[in-house]
Amino acid sequence: MSFLDHIKRCNNADLSQFEPWFIGNERAGFIHRDFAPVVASRAGLFSRGDRAWHLDAALDTPDKRTAAMRAFLLELRAQGHFKGLWREEAYPVTWEFARPALMAMERAAVPWFGVRAFGPHMTGYVRRKDGLHIWVPRRSYAKPTFPGQLDNTVAGGQPAGIGLHDNLIKECAEEAAIPRALAVQAKAVGFVTYWNQSGAQLKPDIMTCFDLELPGDFTPHANDGEVHSFELWPARRVFETVRDTTEFKYNCNLVLIDFFVRHGLLSADDPQFVAIVSGLKMVYTSPNGIG
Amino acid sequence: MSFLDHIKRCNNADLSQFEPWFIGNERAGFIHRDFAPVVASRAGLFSRGDRAWHLDAALDTPDKRTAAMRAFLLELRAQGHFKGLWREEAYPVTWEFARPALMAMERAAVPWFGVRAFGPHMTGYVRRKDGLHIWVPRRSYAKPTFPGQLDNTVAGGQPAGIGLHDNLIKECAEEAAIPRALAVQAKAVGFVTYWNQSGAQLKPDIMTCFDLELPGDFTPHANDGEVHSFELWPARRVFETVRDTTEFKYNCNLVLIDFFVRHGLLSADDPQFVAIVSGLKMVYTSPNGIG
Repeated sequence: MSFLDHIKRCNNADLSQFEPWFIGNERAGFIHRDFAPVVASRAGLFSRGDRAWHLDAALDTPDKRTAAMRAFLLELRAQGHFKGLWREEAYPVTWEFARPALMAMERAAVPWFGVRAFGPHMTGYVRRKDGLHIWVPRRSYAKPTFPGQLDNTVAGGQPAGIGLHDNLIKECAEEAAIPRALAVQAKAVGFVTYWNQSGAQLKPDIMTCFDLELPGDFTPHANDGEVHSFELWPARRVFETVRDTTEFKYNCNLVLIDFFVRHGLLSADDPQFVAIVSGLKMVYTSPNGIG
Repeated sequence: MSFLDHIKRCNNADLSQFEPWFIGNERAGFIHRDFAPVVASRAGLFSRGDRAWHLDAALDTPDKRTAAMRAFLLELRAQGHFKGLWREEAYPVTWEFARPALMAMERAAVPWFGVRAFGPHMTGYVRRKDGLHIWVPRRSYAKPTFPGQLDNTVAGGQPAGIGLHDNLIKECAEEAAIPRALAVQAKAVGFVTYWNQSGAQLKPDIMTCFDLELPGDFTPHANDGEVHSFELWPARRVFETVRDTTEFKYNCNLVLIDFFVRHGLLSADDPQFVAIVSGLKMVYTSPNGIG
């Protein structure tokens, strides 16, 4: 592996297999050609034209869209879709989190509709005399997704109805027992985007990167069963583990690479410097211009 | 002004007024429609076809290209082009500084041929008990470009034949009397790109951002006449001056906005957060796909 390999691995999507879907004039997401028959089977919800899908224009408010989509998704669930991943957690449907959501959608369905997901990903670090250290959690072996893999210090999906910073403060408490007085000091320092495909599912996601400098005498600990354990690693060990292995959950590598760049661990004269920094903000422009 | 206004001001180029020029299969830059007759007047150097210009294929080494172009540019200078800006300083012609240059070109000609320029831009800062401070220089009132404007702590154009970090160390000594032992601690932390047009000139430039934490008892001072004076400002004052005024040289605002983002001075819940961070890495895709 290399940093660029991680970027390529996250950005494996082939958008030629997808068509966009719209709510009015706004692109809401992407539907894979293998999932399209499922969408088409629900009479009246979507219509197709001009190489794109269009949500029924009669659903003219976010609430109406959310309700109609939920009824459809519950039917799919009854047919065996989404397996154990249904969470009863509403995600906003929008390309920019700061804009009012077009509707809400159950989290488990989001990648099936190629809807962008959001979320804070925080790196908790300690400045010690012997150098920068990073708190590295290992995901619970009981988690349904990526069990036992290494993770960002604190990270979470972004539900509708709460700000990114407030959501991070909540996740800090739940995942790492970081008290509010510390968590509020976390600083948004950038974002990372990628286009990841898994079968018919697409994640055109954006992660907001936060840094939190933690005092040397503070130890995070798992609070909600999502984390197996925390270890404080020298930044250099994290750097090498990201660069050389796939031990971290795939998208968490990008957040750490962004951290390494911002904290000056790469050289400006590294021949891959520009490609790495560019790759962390992937703009996917497909041949048919739907990216 | 606002941060987004600065990004728009730097990215004012209308690529529909330009055509790309190539060395072999590699795009070297852009030529404005008003400058095209000048280029066409030099028989044998460029040929035009397929809405693009092509440097004579007989110039099959970087040295041959550099020599042929230099002869042309000297003629233009004799005709009154470039005015007082001719510097006798060779810039590399390449889209990626890490790649071997296709040729070299006199600095004053670079924006006339829409060739990407490179350069380190460093923010020198001090962590004081009363908060982050930034060393702000005012450009000499005798400089031919942007006299008297505020600037990044240390910045310079990037000539051929020296690395970015080594060039920064040299500029630190020349512009701010920062000794080598301090300057080597500067860290590359990202880059900023923009597409700026001024008449027939195009700057599709990239600036490598460096941070240098300076000790509280160190004071930079002008060493080569390029800087009028240095002042240590609270980061908040720099933030407000960038946001609300045009006192800083236009492209230096972008480097400081990148600094503000990386140091957590913007909120993740600022409705413009994503647009600002995206805007610092502008990918220009023109309707005819030459961007």
